[in-house]
Amino acid sequence: MSTMYEKVSALAVRETSKSIQEKIVKDAEIELIVNKTLTRKFSISPDSLKEFAMGYLLGEGLIRSLENVEEISIEENTVKVQVDMEDFDIVQELVVGSDCFGGWRQKIEFIDKVESEFTVDKKKLLKSFIKLKDNAFTWQKTGGAHVAALIYKDKFLSREDVSRHVAVDKVIGAGLLEKVDFKNSYIAYSGRMPADMLIKIARVGMPLIASNAAPTTSGYAVAKEAGITMVGFVRGERFNIYTHPHRVVID
Amino acid sequence: MSTMYEKVSALAVRETSKSIQEKIVKDAEIELIVNKTLTRKFSISPDSLKEFAMGYLLGEGLIRSLENVEEISIEENTVKVQVDMEDFDIVQELVVGSDCFGGWRQKIEFIDKVESEFTVDKKKLLKSFIKLKDNAFTWQKTGGAHVAALIYKDKFLSREDVSRHVAVDKVIGAGLLEKVDFKNSYIAYSGRMPADMLIKIARVGMPLIASNAAPTTSGYAVAKEAGITMVGFVRGERFNIYTHPHRVVID
Repeated sequence: MSTMYEKVSALAVRETSKSIQEKIVKDAEIELIVNKTLTRKFSISPDSLKEFAMGYLLGEGLIRSLENVEEISIEENTVKVQVDMEDFDIVQELVVGSDCFGGWRQKIEFIDKVESEFTVDKKKLLKSFIKLKDNAFTWQKTGGAHVAALIYKDKFLSREDVSRHVAVDKVIGAGLLEKVDFKNSYIAYSGRMPADMLIKIARVGMPLIASNAAPTTSGYAVAKEAGITMVGFVRGERFNIYTHPHRVVID
Repeated sequence: MSTMYEKVSALAVRETSKSIQEKIVKDAEIELIVNKTLTRKFSISPDSLKEFAMGYLLGEGLIRSLENVEEISIEENTVKVQVDMEDFDIVQELVVGSDCFGGWRQKIEFIDKVESEFTVDKKKLLKSFIKLKDNAFTWQKTGGAHVAALIYKDKFLSREDVSRHVAVDKVIGAGLLEKVDFKNSYIAYSGRMPADMLIKIARVGMPLIASNAAPTTSGYAVAKEAGITMVGFVRGERFNIYTHPHRVVID
């Protein structure tokens, strides 16, 4: 893992002022090129790029499993992937056609309901957030990164990124590479939950997402429709369950 | 101002659990169409759309002043703007050519250095963050919105949005409509500071941005290069100044 921060000089203004060295979170322009034609730029933490690419492609529906990936090469800030999917052109049209700042209404129509018998115990859910914070190394140093974890049986895969979406992409990619059964896993993470985040979760078939932050109305609508349990404001011993609460075992 | 939240039922899990009504922040797909050809979709809070459009266009360089705006119409979630700029096609190429998740390296080359004699007193800067929190009505109710304020002499223009970028777009737009002299104003707001945020600030000629959150390395680089004072982690009586500290009068 490359270093996720840089040191810079800053003036710390308190009661008195002094020059300090501060660690600030690194972000870089990463270019993802799929099948030589589909090109997207991202401002993200330049780390775990293979996991990022795999998770992003799965979450966008540009691959359905690792078997669709013929080749991946990473050179500095460029990730090139060759995928083999019969309907790539149709899916690409859908991904490129909708701007990255939106286009979720169109996407919701293509989402299947998540079918899963998965449940998680209240205490285990709360513990995963303690572990999440303990693993937020870059956030601890810089205060400027999101952290996400994919939790599956005894696995706890965590990644950080300046982008909350990409933190989740990275753990989904890590889970894909480790052949995690997404239908029996969940995401614990540090960001808000709008539609495009929930669509990602729905597309990989994950039954639950939990965050220390808030939902938005679009995310709530997708969670409800797609059958995903959405947990928000996990803080200390408390949280709220917004949709499909049966998956959290409280007693 | 339309309501920025909706009420939904949720299960509040504490020591015991109970059903509650929670307010969650509203987000919607907004389409911005410029000169009938340039179309972008945004997931934002459907409020202050005129201000958003004006601020976004100014921050992207698609207008240089209100005089470039020939017509604006807002119908539900669609904002149509007709602008008159000689080099619109060139600028449009630049905005559309760079993905909204990135493309800042290319943009930095087109940014002029901010020239301004503006200074702000330490105590006034700290006070603006108390006022910012007091004006974060949607955040107080939902925990899911960013808030930004444009501060100019006795003016304090504040707006909220689910997107930190759009919260800033909205106050820039509000400032433009109120003919604020951007060279003698500053932004106080609640989000991180990456390159694309700093580029926006540079393009409108603003000399200072302050946040309760962290910078990123790309934002730091732009602030340094463009001559913008970047203040981070404003919390209680403390903050850090990362670049061009001479604009904050400490004693």
